[in-house]
Amino acid sequence: MRNIKLVIEYDGTDYHGWQLQPGLKTIQGILESRLSTITKADVTLYGAGRTDAGVHALGQVANFRTDSRMTPEEFMMALNSILPGDIVIKHVQEVEEDFHARYSAVSRTYRYTILSEKTPSAFLRNYVYQVTYSIDVDSMADSCKALLGTHDFSSFASTGDPVRDFTRTVTYAGIQQQVSSIQHRLIHFQIEANAFLRCMVRAIAGTLLEIGKGKMPPEKMRDIMEARDRRAAGPNLPGKGLYLVKVDYPE
Amino acid sequence: MRNIKLVIEYDGTDYHGWQLQPGLKTIQGILESRLSTITKADVTLYGAGRTDAGVHALGQVANFRTDSRMTPEEFMMALNSILPGDIVIKHVQEVEEDFHARYSAVSRTYRYTILSEKTPSAFLRNYVYQVTYSIDVDSMADSCKALLGTHDFSSFASTGDPVRDFTRTVTYAGIQQQVSSIQHRLIHFQIEANAFLRCMVRAIAGTLLEIGKGKMPPEKMRDIMEARDRRAAGPNLPGKGLYLVKVDYPE
Repeated sequence: MRNIKLVIEYDGTDYHGWQLQPGLKTIQGILESRLSTITKADVTLYGAGRTDAGVHALGQVANFRTDSRMTPEEFMMALNSILPGDIVIKHVQEVEEDFHARYSAVSRTYRYTILSEKTPSAFLRNYVYQVTYSIDVDSMADSCKALLGTHDFSSFASTGDPVRDFTRTVTYAGIQQQVSSIQHRLIHFQIEANAFLRCMVRAIAGTLLEIGKGKMPPEKMRDIMEARDRRAAGPNLPGKGLYLVKVDYPE
Repeated sequence: MRNIKLVIEYDGTDYHGWQLQPGLKTIQGILESRLSTITKADVTLYGAGRTDAGVHALGQVANFRTDSRMTPEEFMMALNSILPGDIVIKHVQEVEEDFHARYSAVSRTYRYTILSEKTPSAFLRNYVYQVTYSIDVDSMADSCKALLGTHDFSSFASTGDPVRDFTRTVTYAGIQQQVSSIQHRLIHFQIEANAFLRCMVRAIAGTLLEIGKGKMPPEKMRDIMEARDRRAAGPNLPGKGLYLVKVDYPE
């Protein structure tokens, strides 16, 4: 069977996350059903990373096996013509038999976007987490340095996460500011790691925001990590500000 | 009675435009009903400019008269707490008795946003007009110059527009390129005039796009305007790419 890789952009607002759940509208569920329609066979899709309800993706990656003879270009056109407008296939490629979107990935990049404005935004309400107070972006950027490298990230783990090893390697963590096309001031926290714990980015973003608010100094980030205790960190920020930006593979 | 001015941002996607229409969901309809709830009296809202179905606003202006003693700040908080998330009050101010959002306005600024990408965008689907071909932005910018000044804009008027005088004065017309926070290349056409004919911006944007595609040279804009014939210009682009950016008043 052929092995096909998809790069997918989605607006997660109206979905119960990526993962197939009986009776609920999920990205994986919609994609598998549309792929079955196109290939006239059952299709199982393997995603690189689960995203929770309301979380978005600019470059989620998934793969599936098929006997269909459609070209990558034909798959892309066929899928985009029958998918709802909030799920878009950005790239299709035939890959080696042993490629697995999740297990072959060497790194994932996530972004958390905060809007710092006094009034809400009619346009960004589902795409950012808004704060009405002013935040110290330099302090947030400073505290990102502590995240770099290989560490035990238990302090940012969800209680009940079934993993045993909380060690992850962060290869990039930083803050960017941007003025949107509708003049809103956005603060992006971007992080790249070999893999992530469940809700890890939302917990780190919540901690960064506490630092940005001045509730703790930037140096505190290192202490929080060393505590290996979820209670030491800030709260999880909501899913709507989170984006799976990209997934990288060898070569 | 007091006269209160509102500055309103809205995502027009789910609305049948600004203007009150019995049985249809409109921005004016929702705002009047919420204002009546807050002030416990019937409220009539005067808007600076009508926007059609799907058209957005960053800074629509409207005014209403009321006996309520609420402060501007209290109006803003009360309205934003009961309005749906796609309508946001950005500013409230008590104004002179003779202020009228429409008749006192000295200029309006609109923007039309085009996305030039091969694949659709899951996030911008309701907020831009997408073209999959490449466009010559310099030619579009060149042809904007012909729009400046006082002219008869019949070539961009809707057939059936009841106005008799098609003369309007354009004080700014230009093109800006921007890369969005999700790395999309956006082309904004922005135009300021004392007033606009119905669908005028969408007709000009459609003509600019014909020029950008290379279907006609930039010099053609002047000929189209001199023709005073709607058939000389390009098609109206859809409402979803159009934004009422701001409305200006004397002093």
